[in-house]
Amino acid sequence: MYSCALSDAALSCLLAEDVPFGDLTTESLGLRGRPGRLEFHARGAMTVCGVEEAVRLFALAGANACLVIPSGVAVESDTLLLTAEGPAEALHWAWKTAQTLMEWASGIASGAAALVRAAAPVPVACTRKNAPGTKALSIKAIQAGGAIAHRLGLSETLLVFAEHRLFLDESPSAAIARLRNRQPEKKIVVEVVSADEALTWARAGVDVLQLEKFTPAGLSACRARLEIDGLQPVLVAAGGVRVENAADYVAAGAAMIATSAPYHAAPRDVRVQFFKAA
Amino acid sequence: MYSCALSDAALSCLLAEDVPFGDLTTESLGLRGRPGRLEFHARGAMTVCGVEEAVRLFALAGANACLVIPSGVAVESDTLLLTAEGPAEALHWAWKTAQTLMEWASGIASGAAALVRAAAPVPVACTRKNAPGTKALSIKAIQAGGAIAHRLGLSETLLVFAEHRLFLDESPSAAIARLRNRQPEKKIVVEVVSADEALTWARAGVDVLQLEKFTPAGLSACRARLEIDGLQPVLVAAGGVRVENAADYVAAGAAMIATSAPYHAAPRDVRVQFFKAA
Amino acid sequence: MYSCALSDAALSCLLAEDVPFGDLTTESLGLRGRPGRLEFHARGAMTVCGVEEAVRLFALAGANACLVIPSGVAVESDTLLLTAEGPAEALHWAWKTAQTLMEWASGIASGAAALVRAAAPVPVACTRKNAPGTKALSIKAIQAGGAIAHRLGLSETLLVFAEHRLFLDESPSAAIARLRNRQPEKKIVVEVVSADEALTWARAGVDVLQLEKFTPAGLSACRARLEIDGLQPVLVAAGGVRVENAADYVAAGAAMIATSAPYHAAPRDVRVQFFKAA
Amino acid sequence: MYSCALSDAALSCLLAEDVPFGDLTTESLGLRGRPGRLEFHARGAMTVCGVEEAVRLFALAGANACLVIPSGVAVESDTLLLTAEGPAEALHWAWKTAQTLMEWASGIASGAAALVRAAAPVPVACTRKNAPGTKALSIKAIQAGGAIAHRLGLSETLLVFAEHRLFLDESPSAAIARLRNRQPEKKIVVEVVSADEALTWARAGVDVLQLEKFTPAGLSACRARLEIDGLQPVLVAAGGVRVENAADYVAAGAAMIATSAPYHAAPRDVRVQFFKAA
Amino acid sequence: MYSCALSDAALSCLLAEDVPFGDLTTESLGLRGRPGRLEFHARGAMTVCGVEEAVRLFALAGANACLVIPSGVAVESDTLLLTAEGPAEALHWAWKTAQTLMEWASGIASGAAALVRAAAPVPVACTRKNAPGTKALSIKAIQAGGAIAHRLGLSETLLVFAEHRLFLDESPSAAIARLRNRQPEKKIVVEVVSADEALTWARAGVDVLQLEKFTPAGLSACRARLEIDGLQPVLVAAGGVRVENAADYVAAGAAMIATSAPYHAAPRDVRVQFFKAA
Amino acid sequence: MYSCALSDAALSCLLAEDVPFGDLTTESLGLRGRPGRLEFHARGAMTVCGVEEAVRLFALAGANACLVIPSGVAVESDTLLLTAEGPAEALHWAWKTAQTLMEWASGIASGAAALVRAAAPVPVACTRKNAPGTKALSIKAIQAGGAIAHRLGLSETLLVFAEHRLFLDESPSAAIARLRNRQPEKKIVVEVVSADEALTWARAGVDVLQLEKFTPAGLSACRARLEIDGLQPVLVAAGGVRVENAADYVAAGAAMIATSAPYHAAPRDVRVQFFKAA
Repeated sequence: MYSCALSDAALSCLLAEDVPFGDLTTESLGLRGRPGRLEFHARGAMTVCGVEEAVRLFALAGANACLVIPSGVAVESDTLLLTAEGPAEALHWAWKTAQTLMEWASGIASGAAALVRAAAPVPVACTRKNAPGTKALSIKAIQAGGAIAHRLGLSETLLVFAEHRLFLDESPSAAIARLRNRQPEKKIVVEVVSADEALTWARAGVDVLQLEKFTPAGLSACRARLEIDGLQPVLVAAGGVRVENAADYVAAGAAMIATSAPYHAAPRDVRVQFFKAA
Repeated sequence: MYSCALSDAALSCLLAEDVPFGDLTTESLGLRGRPGRLEFHARGAMTVCGVEEAVRLFALAGANACLVIPSGVAVESDTLLLTAEGPAEALHWAWKTAQTLMEWASGIASGAAALVRAAAPVPVACTRKNAPGTKALSIKAIQAGGAIAHRLGLSETLLVFAEHRLFLDESPSAAIARLRNRQPEKKIVVEVVSADEALTWARAGVDVLQLEKFTPAGLSACRARLEIDGLQPVLVAAGGVRVENAADYVAAGAAMIATSAPYHAAPRDVRVQFFKAA
Repeated sequence: MYSCALSDAALSCLLAEDVPFGDLTTESLGLRGRPGRLEFHARGAMTVCGVEEAVRLFALAGANACLVIPSGVAVESDTLLLTAEGPAEALHWAWKTAQTLMEWASGIASGAAALVRAAAPVPVACTRKNAPGTKALSIKAIQAGGAIAHRLGLSETLLVFAEHRLFLDESPSAAIARLRNRQPEKKIVVEVVSADEALTWARAGVDVLQLEKFTPAGLSACRARLEIDGLQPVLVAAGGVRVENAADYVAAGAAMIATSAPYHAAPRDVRVQFFKAA
Repeated sequence: MYSCALSDAALSCLLAEDVPFGDLTTESLGLRGRPGRLEFHARGAMTVCGVEEAVRLFALAGANACLVIPSGVAVESDTLLLTAEGPAEALHWAWKTAQTLMEWASGIASGAAALVRAAAPVPVACTRKNAPGTKALSIKAIQAGGAIAHRLGLSETLLVFAEHRLFLDESPSAAIARLRNRQPEKKIVVEVVSADEALTWARAGVDVLQLEKFTPAGLSACRARLEIDGLQPVLVAAGGVRVENAADYVAAGAAMIATSAPYHAAPRDVRVQFFKAA
Repeated sequence: MYSCALSDAALSCLLAEDVPFGDLTTESLGLRGRPGRLEFHARGAMTVCGVEEAVRLFALAGANACLVIPSGVAVESDTLLLTAEGPAEALHWAWKTAQTLMEWASGIASGAAALVRAAAPVPVACTRKNAPGTKALSIKAIQAGGAIAHRLGLSETLLVFAEHRLFLDESPSAAIARLRNRQPEKKIVVEVVSADEALTWARAGVDVLQLEKFTPAGLSACRARLEIDGLQPVLVAAGGVRVENAADYVAAGAAMIATSAPYHAAPRDVRVQFFKAA
Repeated sequence: MYSCALSDAALSCLLAEDVPFGDLTTESLGLRGRPGRLEFHARGAMTVCGVEEAVRLFALAGANACLVIPSGVAVESDTLLLTAEGPAEALHWAWKTAQTLMEWASGIASGAAALVRAAAPVPVACTRKNAPGTKALSIKAIQAGGAIAHRLGLSETLLVFAEHRLFLDESPSAAIARLRNRQPEKKIVVEVVSADEALTWARAGVDVLQLEKFTPAGLSACRARLEIDGLQPVLVAAGGVRVENAADYVAAGAAMIATSAPYHAAPRDVRVQFFKAA
């Protein structure tokens, strides 16, 4: 169901980067052309990601791979994920690149999935802070885990940081009115670090408040203060949300969780086994 | 001293991916052209990496950045790393891309440095298992931390895995002789998972044994068995080496540590502060 | 103020595409190295765009260009926009590529500016239907003309077309609730082609209605019907809005104009004059 | 018959630019995997172009498209051009990119075809002034309309502009002789703006005169003056030729029409209809 | 005078291909940061090419290089061509890439120059048969040697091979008339392998005959036969022309030499000397 | 057995560079769509290389090609290597690009093969001095000829040049010890130009001596001097080794030949024959 996040051109670059001129060991041992087969199994429970790319990597290397479990599926340990067959040099060429990609992407997907489960039914949005150069695969991985992308970048959403407000020389309500007129199709989001700031900007008319590093109790208190004024902006909990406390944030009134944490999840192990073909 | 690991073309892609058409918030608030300045400080002790790339990102976005601490330097918390000045839209354009890159690269560099210190004087070599698409920056980061690259890829070293040996139909000594004749300038490395395997391949004449997931005690015992036969191949400890046990591996006789761990180190926080310029 | 919409790598491609191996005429006439100068003037009134790219094209070709008027400025006929000096082969190399780019981009910017003036104070948003392969420069040009980008693409906004609703098997209000929960930071936009559809979806709770090919009178009538129910979604007029009738749409209640028209504006002429340097 | 003007890599970029991470609306509505079908019909008479690219765009997005009418064919209104089927997210992914590309390219092809018909049997050559970054598709489109490319760039033809002559310090006949000796396989083309200039350069021995912004009557008079001297260079009418007056230029003696007009032709509408598949 | 044939992006690729992660030897010896200087001298007489690219390679590697002799100049043995200074790791990074590029390009330039001298005053045109992937630099090199590019490719010239004529079902004169009408600005070139073929096509009205593998005597005889009929097409000698016999071809009546030979010229040696800076 | 050394993206670039907009001659003669066939035959004995890329070039151009002889096979003159069939414009599009690539790569493969035969059983390693921009195909070609790549670049091997030693301020044995500790998996190679240097570095403990421009006699004498001290480093003969004297170097004790010569081998002729299909 998921398509490749990386084009053939990008996957060819990954292969060429690792194996520009063939596997020297296979070549030097004279093993070129020996037929083989391999299997990828999950070494633990995981939400799978990157199988589509792995299949294509084997194809580009000259082997035939078969997708068993697509991205986005949560599997038990020892589940067969992918098989491939072809000459020894092709299997060795794509092996580690495919395995590393799947382990890394499945780590992010599994990390996202854990947080999604913890925060349900509130959505989990992952930020822009993915590892540099991995955006396409990082976003696929968090989506495979059930999360959404918070912002794709700076050009398509209105998120007013203190670093913007520093340059403002008009009142909050004037600033909000300006944004509302200029971008009538966008919600206006303001990041705040205290309940006072939250109140100021809610009164000025924001649609969404991004509460940076509030505790669940702080979020709850902030929400209460806003409601006294009849203000009900969407509240987003950002910074410090973990699997352990996500439900507390939701209970406190967060309509969404914003987090970078899944990007740094540890890779999930994929066990690779080679077989000699007849 | 360190040059940029990423070309201008690659850095432009990173910027364009995040901010293809300007910071909508800055634009919509009418802040274009307001002069500003920012500073990056280390939020904790770290081995710095990625400053050269960050400086160049600001330049490509239309600001002037100044490198204060180059990659490879270990700093205390609150050390000033970089400053930049320019119009608000340029600072906002490059800010998070530069910050995320530095935090991520400094995380890897710091992770590598910790292991390097623990394993000294034995070198730490990082494997090919970096996050997919980040090879150039990952290698720079582990080098900034004092580690070396284990293998750049499959095309330039001889590392015989069990997955190669599966296809062999000749004796270990015949295989080693074949490699020796074919590649007289390369050391022959064989990965083994037991002392028996180690003995077999040492007798066959390998230069280096990569001991996969041996304990320090296991490594020590393996070395003792080899010495009984007068065999003294270079021993590399791979799999499971951590800051806590690295010294034990070295004491047990490892001449090198091979590890993927630093690639998964948590990012190190960089604090960014904006100022309004006169 | 505006930065280049195209990286050096992209600008080098434009130059190489037109002049892969030098200007054969200059070379064959033996004119290499003769010093010259040129000036670009607006041949009519226009909103300028593309000067930053033109300046950089001359630099990449080995000449020195000087920006006189930046993108985004409305100028009178005969205004000097740019000068360049250098050897004849460099001036000839970049001349037409720079001129064509500026004429094309200034055409779009001027077309956008005319519509922006006509629709003021309501914003004009340009669609995704730019000429294929020109997105970066097209968006810069409509921004230079004072318009905004409607959607950067499909991945960052919620715009429900009939082509989506075809696949739905739940009620409009269920669909809207689903979107609202899943994407609490996004406004929900639905494209409708009749007042009945508008009413249906406004009742279901949309934030924005995109009224496709309504007349100003039709838009006004639609708005009246919605207000009877106390519904006041943002109304966007899309399809068929021109300079001549934009004010009518605004008077009828449109909060935004969505249009592709500026992308197809005729290029604005730039007059180029060469001089022999001493 | 026509192949794709854009490689898979280039088409993947177009798709990624518009839909980097999936259609958010389809995803958020939970429509992933719903089977669908669509049809592209000409909304008016047109010379078709871009179908090959559209078919490939759907394939890259994960749908199966079928080419009904290839580029270069003139069709009546309501002609079926292309069908595609696949999951909703794939159809939505490629839909607008494919439609916009076909509309834009068919606009150029149709514009070229109209001029080709008007100028028959004399060829119509389109200049280098295509929209920046669209050269491959622009040239395909004018070829699909029956026109030819005037010059691919500066490196392969001899076209002496006044901007070259400014730097000359030898007589026209010396300059022509120099070109003739240096490039014996190329015709020598000189652009002139008056009959006097035409006579000067025809006497000097040019093969082709490009008459810039001559009226048909002016071209006819120029040709008569040249014939008095027994001079019969190829005459190319450039600048100001339109469908309405092309035949007059041909009657006046133009052997070719050089024009940029088709590049700015309005897009031709393509009607897209979605169907729910069983 | 000559600009770089390769963009910074292309030169960065060359460097990264050879030295993706620094010079391991310099690093491992602890020589990073030691200041040095180097000089490139011609090891024999040569026509220089590639210095502009070499200078830029050193800059991209972090050294400062100074161009002493530009491309296109014929120098004596031991002439200083380029100097560079910087830290040891930068000099080692760019050294061989720069040297190999200059040696290779100077080999082609020198080979072209020798043929140009032998054929003077008739121009030497080099064919499309350069080493795959080296077109930009190959064309620069033959131009630096004083030769011209025969055809840049298939899309901009008319050269009728026997492999085209095989598909023709009309007479030579009908084919020529068709080409003449369709492409009035291009000369019509036909490749022939015998005097009979030459006569046939000259009678049909070609502008240029490309005589494939004629001897000088054969070319002379062919020309005589054509003149009996009053036919004087441009005669191009192609295939088998060498420095030794080029003058014979010219004496026999060739107006141009077409050859691939310079692309295969042996590299010219460049001597590189390192110095330790204070 | 050999895979393509160039990705589809790279092969598309080669095609586009030569034929950006179709074969003008085929188009202008009205031959589009005429069915044809062609065959590639070896014009002399050769070791074939580049057939896989040629087959793919025809596919990308819209023809069907069939590989008859794969890379790496030594064939007699007149052996059929490849066939292709398709419309005339597709065959003409890919013809010369495919032919030139195969001729060039087969030249290198054949040159390498000749040296490999002469030096057997000692391996031949080709250096980094391939034509700039051709690395992937150059390495494939020398591998097809039975040679190996000496170094892929500077980042993965230890080869100490005099240009490194210039910066050293420690003794040879200290330098070797430093390298040995820092890179326990790499052999240490030192390039020397005299027997004295050889002795110095062998005593310091190098693994491999690269003897630059030694005669066979000189190599033999050097080896004898080393053996007096009981030193038996691997000896590599580099510089000046040719087919004629390779066996002498082997007899003198070289364990490997390092050479750049095959990169400059003359292309091997491939005969191309077109046929008109029914």
